[in-house]
Amino acid sequence: MSDTDNRPHIVILGGGFGGLAAARELDDPSMRVTLIDRRNHHLFQPLLYQVATAGLSAPSIAAPLRQILRKQANATVLMDEAMDIDLAHRRVQLRQGPIDYDYLVVATGATHAYFGHDDWAADAPGLKTLDDAFTIRRRVLTAFERAEREDDPAKRQAWLNFVVVGGGATGVELAGTLAEIARHTLPREFRRADPRRANVVLVEAGPRLLPAFADALSAKARRQLEKLGVQVRTGTAVTAIDGGGVLLGEEPMQARTVLWAAGVSASSLGRTLDAGLDRAGRVRVEPDLSLPAHPEVFVVGDLASLVQADGKPVPGVAPAAKQMGRHAATRIRALLRGETGKAPFRYRDDGSLATIGRMAAVAQFGKLKLSGVLAWWVWLIAHVYFLIGFRNRLVVLLDWAWAYWTYQRHARIVTGEDVKIGNPTLPEDASG
Amino acid sequence: MSDTDNRPHIVILGGGFGGLAAARELDDPSMRVTLIDRRNHHLFQPLLYQVATAGLSAPSIAAPLRQILRKQANATVLMDEAMDIDLAHRRVQLRQGPIDYDYLVVATGATHAYFGHDDWAADAPGLKTLDDAFTIRRRVLTAFERAEREDDPAKRQAWLNFVVVGGGATGVELAGTLAEIARHTLPREFRRADPRRANVVLVEAGPRLLPAFADALSAKARRQLEKLGVQVRTGTAVTAIDGGGVLLGEEPMQARTVLWAAGVSASSLGRTLDAGLDRAGRVRVEPDLSLPAHPEVFVVGDLASLVQADGKPVPGVAPAAKQMGRHAATRIRALLRGETGKAPFRYRDDGSLATIGRMAAVAQFGKLKLSGVLAWWVWLIAHVYFLIGFRNRLVVLLDWAWAYWTYQRHARIVTGEDVKIGNPTLPEDASG
Repeated sequence: MSDTDNRPHIVILGGGFGGLAAARELDDPSMRVTLIDRRNHHLFQPLLYQVATAGLSAPSIAAPLRQILRKQANATVLMDEAMDIDLAHRRVQLRQGPIDYDYLVVATGATHAYFGHDDWAADAPGLKTLDDAFTIRRRVLTAFERAEREDDPAKRQAWLNFVVVGGGATGVELAGTLAEIARHTLPREFRRADPRRANVVLVEAGPRLLPAFADALSAKARRQLEKLGVQVRTGTAVTAIDGGGVLLGEEPMQARTVLWAAGVSASSLGRTLDAGLDRAGRVRVEPDLSLPAHPEVFVVGDLASLVQADGKPVPGVAPAAKQMGRHAATRIRALLRGETGKAPFRYRDDGSLATIGRMAAVAQFGKLKLSGVLAWWVWLIAHVYFLIGFRNRLVVLLDWAWAYWTYQRHARIVTGEDVKIGNPTLPEDASG
Repeated sequence: MSDTDNRPHIVILGGGFGGLAAARELDDPSMRVTLIDRRNHHLFQPLLYQVATAGLSAPSIAAPLRQILRKQANATVLMDEAMDIDLAHRRVQLRQGPIDYDYLVVATGATHAYFGHDDWAADAPGLKTLDDAFTIRRRVLTAFERAEREDDPAKRQAWLNFVVVGGGATGVELAGTLAEIARHTLPREFRRADPRRANVVLVEAGPRLLPAFADALSAKARRQLEKLGVQVRTGTAVTAIDGGGVLLGEEPMQARTVLWAAGVSASSLGRTLDAGLDRAGRVRVEPDLSLPAHPEVFVVGDLASLVQADGKPVPGVAPAAKQMGRHAATRIRALLRGETGKAPFRYRDDGSLATIGRMAAVAQFGKLKLSGVLAWWVWLIAHVYFLIGFRNRLVVLLDWAWAYWTYQRHARIVTGEDVKIGNPTLPEDASG
């Protein structure tokens, strides 16, 4: 890309919470900013499970990066994908050509990982992108359709068994919502297979759900899920997954729908950065988020691995990514002013929230712990507040009010040209 | 499928306007109704172009068939696809097994057709399903992204040239909306390629746009489109299409995005019905919509070909499909009561509407002809009124008000795992 602009050029890779926060913080006509993402949109991932479970439309939780930054005249958005980073020459190799930088912010995040079992991916989709959400929506809705068509009781039940692997926030949210759909949204609509016979099993290898929360809230979350009809199996490892079901330790369970919410691994771009990686493939950064020996390169968000001075690791959550993006931007502005200090990043914990179902959630703000209805209201207000764009906030509120009163979910649409409803013996038929 | 129910069984193939109208008209506990569609949803096709052009979310114009019919206790919905019809044994072969009927309503509609040029399909997507709309949305939005990345002026312009083939309602709506997006929605958001340089060319082989409307309205529609910046080329045949552009007669035009709104052909299921077909593959039905020699089988909607007593063919539009569906249902009820007459179907023309852009439309109600702002308001009220579901009506109104005031389009989200942003020389990269 040719350019005659002499301003310092800051390239940001990734338009998630970290990259977007950095771009916004660099709104200054004395520098130019290029934000690069292989998707055209910023995604509000905390509500992605609602797209997967047909409660929200995709455009309600996503906004074009160009539109978000349209008033920031020093910022250019490019839809492209970084393939390699040449630190010595300060150049990023994109799919469509190279781009040079003076400062670089790498914020390409993480994806789901199967702990060495990549062959599970086809039978147990994870949830990171809108396309992942469409895949899960298609499989879940198609499973109920297949149950309705099935005369054999055992085979029918296999279509009504849902296994969610992983007891973190995403797993809890998916399991709780699936149970609600089966018990409240669908029953009156099927004539042969009763959706209330659906089994939703939430499997967690560790000793408790929501390990990021206090013990007491883990226990509350479990009770709230069980009240919704979810079977919670903690201390249980999934040892095999295929199209017909799972092995829970040694115990087989028939289930045609398995959802993966267990593990993440960092973007592979981290491996090109000439720095140490932790076990999840995240880049070990300096306390100021820069790369060792490369003070002009910062890594933020889920791709960064940092243990703070107090011994606590920075968690892989949206608020941490935002704070890191802003910190990297502040550091770049200081470097451009000629300052030499390396102010360390400090994560400010504004609290944690996880929702379970209608009027059920858990929340933790330092020593304050909430559960049930009150936590649910806090969750709702916080999520609507942080959604980008007035229109999205209004429509999401409307959709939620509608869903609350009617028990309906408005996005129950199966799409995808590859939906095959043919051979019932092959698991991939359910979703392609 | 085993069944011990002795009530007469009416099977309806297709959950579009015709099939759904028939099912609703057969809400009677003395009979049982099975509605079969290979999708899980009814689609409000008149607004599909707005999903394709990122103005509406898919769930705003689609509703699960099960949900629509949930209170009609005699109706069962199955997600499956009819492969063959055995008229002699009154049996439909579905992908997942056979189903027997006493009465059959075939309402599987039409799809777009390339007049013997099926190889054009990959480079000129048509618009019939939600997946088609996502494909068009992805291609259009990606084209502007590619233009922004392109340094060569001629190649950049090729990404900014859009050809819409076919001057019926869909073609007019797509072309008008594309011109608005280029001129009003996107300009402030791109830094290098000015979206206002986009050329939208609407090509029609016949002498005028909107042939279903009066001459004066065709001329008005053309003027309104030209005011929006659309180049209208009537009397011009497209003779070739590939990834690089089109041939208009002998004249080549570079364009990386070509949309097909020119032709439809009836569902291939018509060929299994042992009846005459017209040139578009539609089934020639008796005046009462039944099959010759099979008074228990009715064909309705876009799959039916019928010239009425006054010599006018029934048009392939949503109101005609609905009226036909209701007529077939009424005939079945009469047959079940033992009546022998064969009341003919009569199409009641409630008027025609086509929208062109902001505050621009044409409308024709018998001798009353409207254009401009007034026609646009009539169009808006009619389309919201006929949308299924209170929630959808409210959200669509909200989205339209939002788009009107801000010029924004909220569904500008590129999805599809197969989006390739790699090799700029291959046309299929733009959309996969």
